[in-house]
Amino acid sequence: MNRKMVAFFVGRVLRIEAALMLLPTLVSVIYLESEWIYLAAAVAISFLVGLLLSFRRPKNVSFYTREGITAVALSWILMSIFGSIPLWHAVGHIGFTDALFETISGFTTTGASILTEVESLPKGVLFWRSFTHWVGGMGILVFVLALLPGASGENIYLMKAESPGPSVGKLVPRVKSTAKILYLIYIAITITEMVVLALTGMPVFDAAVITFGTVGTGGFAVTNNGCAAYTALQQGIITFFMIVCGANFNVYFLIVAKKIKDAVKSEEVIAYLSIYATAVVLVAINIRHMFPTIGEVIHHSLFNVASVMTTTGFATADFDRWPNFSRTMLLLVMFIGGCAGSTAGGIKVSRIVIGFKTIKKEFEHLVHPRSVRILKFENKPIEHAVLRGVNVYFLTYFTIFALSVLLVAFDGKDFTSTVTAVIATFNNIGPGLKMVGPTGNYSQFSAFAKYVLMFDMLAGRLELFPMLLIFMPTTWRRQR
Amino acid sequence: MNRKMVAFFVGRVLRIEAALMLLPTLVSVIYLESEWIYLAAAVAISFLVGLLLSFRRPKNVSFYTREGITAVALSWILMSIFGSIPLWHAVGHIGFTDALFETISGFTTTGASILTEVESLPKGVLFWRSFTHWVGGMGILVFVLALLPGASGENIYLMKAESPGPSVGKLVPRVKSTAKILYLIYIAITITEMVVLALTGMPVFDAAVITFGTVGTGGFAVTNNGCAAYTALQQGIITFFMIVCGANFNVYFLIVAKKIKDAVKSEEVIAYLSIYATAVVLVAINIRHMFPTIGEVIHHSLFNVASVMTTTGFATADFDRWPNFSRTMLLLVMFIGGCAGSTAGGIKVSRIVIGFKTIKKEFEHLVHPRSVRILKFENKPIEHAVLRGVNVYFLTYFTIFALSVLLVAFDGKDFTSTVTAVIATFNNIGPGLKMVGPTGNYSQFSAFAKYVLMFDMLAGRLELFPMLLIFMPTTWRRQR
Repeated sequence: MNRKMVAFFVGRVLRIEAALMLLPTLVSVIYLESEWIYLAAAVAISFLVGLLLSFRRPKNVSFYTREGITAVALSWILMSIFGSIPLWHAVGHIGFTDALFETISGFTTTGASILTEVESLPKGVLFWRSFTHWVGGMGILVFVLALLPGASGENIYLMKAESPGPSVGKLVPRVKSTAKILYLIYIAITITEMVVLALTGMPVFDAAVITFGTVGTGGFAVTNNGCAAYTALQQGIITFFMIVCGANFNVYFLIVAKKIKDAVKSEEVIAYLSIYATAVVLVAINIRHMFPTIGEVIHHSLFNVASVMTTTGFATADFDRWPNFSRTMLLLVMFIGGCAGSTAGGIKVSRIVIGFKTIKKEFEHLVHPRSVRILKFENKPIEHAVLRGVNVYFLTYFTIFALSVLLVAFDGKDFTSTVTAVIATFNNIGPGLKMVGPTGNYSQFSAFAKYVLMFDMLAGRLELFPMLLIFMPTTWRRQR
Repeated sequence: MNRKMVAFFVGRVLRIEAALMLLPTLVSVIYLESEWIYLAAAVAISFLVGLLLSFRRPKNVSFYTREGITAVALSWILMSIFGSIPLWHAVGHIGFTDALFETISGFTTTGASILTEVESLPKGVLFWRSFTHWVGGMGILVFVLALLPGASGENIYLMKAESPGPSVGKLVPRVKSTAKILYLIYIAITITEMVVLALTGMPVFDAAVITFGTVGTGGFAVTNNGCAAYTALQQGIITFFMIVCGANFNVYFLIVAKKIKDAVKSEEVIAYLSIYATAVVLVAINIRHMFPTIGEVIHHSLFNVASVMTTTGFATADFDRWPNFSRTMLLLVMFIGGCAGSTAGGIKVSRIVIGFKTIKKEFEHLVHPRSVRILKFENKPIEHAVLRGVNVYFLTYFTIFALSVLLVAFDGKDFTSTVTAVIATFNNIGPGLKMVGPTGNYSQFSAFAKYVLMFDMLAGRLELFPMLLIFMPTTWRRQR
């Protein structure tokens, strides 16, 4: 482990964070809030610590998977700690644990909240809270990659560790330029949604904050009843952008590269939209008696299925009161999540598709033992390493899931709340059912349970392995 | 598909079933019950249909995996249908669906019941109900293997399809003789428990029925409050035999073969006992305030953890009223289940161990990308096919699990009851939580949900694939 290089890297990330926090500080100043000082303090502290860590580039710049993974995990943890300063101090009644929970929830684009009341909070703090979604959405490190100089060898490991889903490799001939293009797409989508929402008459502050929550598939809102306060048109626009941001960004990359034919043939996006459409229809049939018109039924099904499947977590209705079939259907799509290479969490559609193909192949092998078939995905043979990766991912996923439920159960909360709290944090969604349903929150959990859920949010966002590796002693051993 | 050979095989199984049903018929006659006629009718019908199907051995005796797997799945389904005749007619108020549910629950050693009251039922029927556990426990087909003549080539496929756990291969140089030894061990354990229980003063009928439930890890009892009616000593004996029957029978095979050293080094059994001990301690700490003495706390923890981990499903206490941590711990060990090569259900300890080793290896590979390590289990390298099998098993397991929960959720029962009903049937345990807890039952589910749960019981018992393959059209295609 080249510790100096890891520290150097983390330091640069903290400096970037300091720069990013200038924006909410500015917002706070514009609204003439006295809390701007906490934001400014956070900027100063992050910058100073960042500078201290990355003052001089180490002589030994060797940087392999181990360093890359550790740097990613530590960056997310430290970013969250420094990012929690404004919340901790500006929200009078919450302690460090709660502030950290809220910030990790923000950066990991989970949107699970410990706040019972948000409307009275300073605008600058609310802006920062939602802005963390936007920053975390695309991955702060893609950001770093796109802006900072560095050897491409070092970057590919970071991108691998951080990108959601099993395969980024294919579109990364040159990581830095790819990251830049993805980032430009991301900014373009952001500006489009913000402008469209503002045009419908939504206040600009709300338009910005809701857009951060949508594009980052996060889900923090600025009113106490989530998205229920907005008009049906505005909710429809949010639905559209949630679905857009849960799709694989490779598709937009291909569209930008004028490979429209390849874009529309994306196996993952087709599967993603098919699962979405199926779930919407089934839920709509199940909740048809709950709204006065069929239009409203479809509207709420479209919105809330999109919200949980893309792991955003906005709500227009308290789906915890929907019939059991719909609640279960929503839980199922929570597990599936969005596409790889999107800002969404969950297991990812591509892994589900590859999993199904693996099962199908095994069946054919049982019936025709001498048949030899090669698994294909997106028209390319799936490499053995990818297949193994998917299998190990599933094993690890369910292991972490089971142990988390057990640890959170120490709190003695009811079974549904306990299980869905883990589902909603581990898959980076936000709301679960019962106590943590759309109208509830996470404030009643003990500090211990909150730290378990924070771990789950980070593990879910970073594709499991980085958060586990930093607990392994061999990771930290000095280089021989 | 050699359909004639499959029919021939299934016919032989039904004839065996007819012979087995003579025993409960005799019990019914001894107790001078008028219901003996239903048992006798079931004997006659099974025998006749069996004779019709297996009257003449087909000319083409080719019998491969496909035929083997289909024969196993069909045998279990037909055995359950014919075996449900006595229950259907002797229990006045239940229909065919409920009788079939109860019988599948018996043969698959699940022990999930739709009966609200059992004490008033005829002894002959109660005996048959529990005897199905004993028959299903070791696998009716190991029974068939041990008794019927046949080419060993045909038998290995059957054994593979039916035996619990990922690997039977290593102890089957000659399938038939192995099956005989396993069966003798099984009978020896059965007689021992029966005698020991009778010596403590338990009525002989109860001793027999409870033994069938224990040795087959089934869980049907003959009193309405399960095992709570028996003395602490009797409960202790049952605990001991549950643990014995949840362990890998290879170990007893090795002991019989005087390879004691190999037996005590069994990696799976060590892991099994370690998980059991850990769960017992954690649950005991958690329920320490619920019983007057520490002895009782340990006693009930030992019994109930053993009961759910070995997927037996007896209960001495209503663990649904235990604190949430204990309930979650019990659910966790329900998933794990017993050892491969035992009568228990669940994912199996060996798969869990192999899963953990796979994760560990992947981690080491991430940290040291050039390291090459071979995974070992029970001191032998794990073959690639076994590893792939375990991975596919996990994928298929969670897919069936998720879809079952969704389908059962159509019933609109509460989330905990819905999820734990699937957990308890799919892992062949019996009781879950809430509505299907130790004091509840499955009678309130709709017929549709019951059929889903019946599928889950069979899929869980037959290691997933047979029950899925019979729904694939290619399985049924005639041989070219």
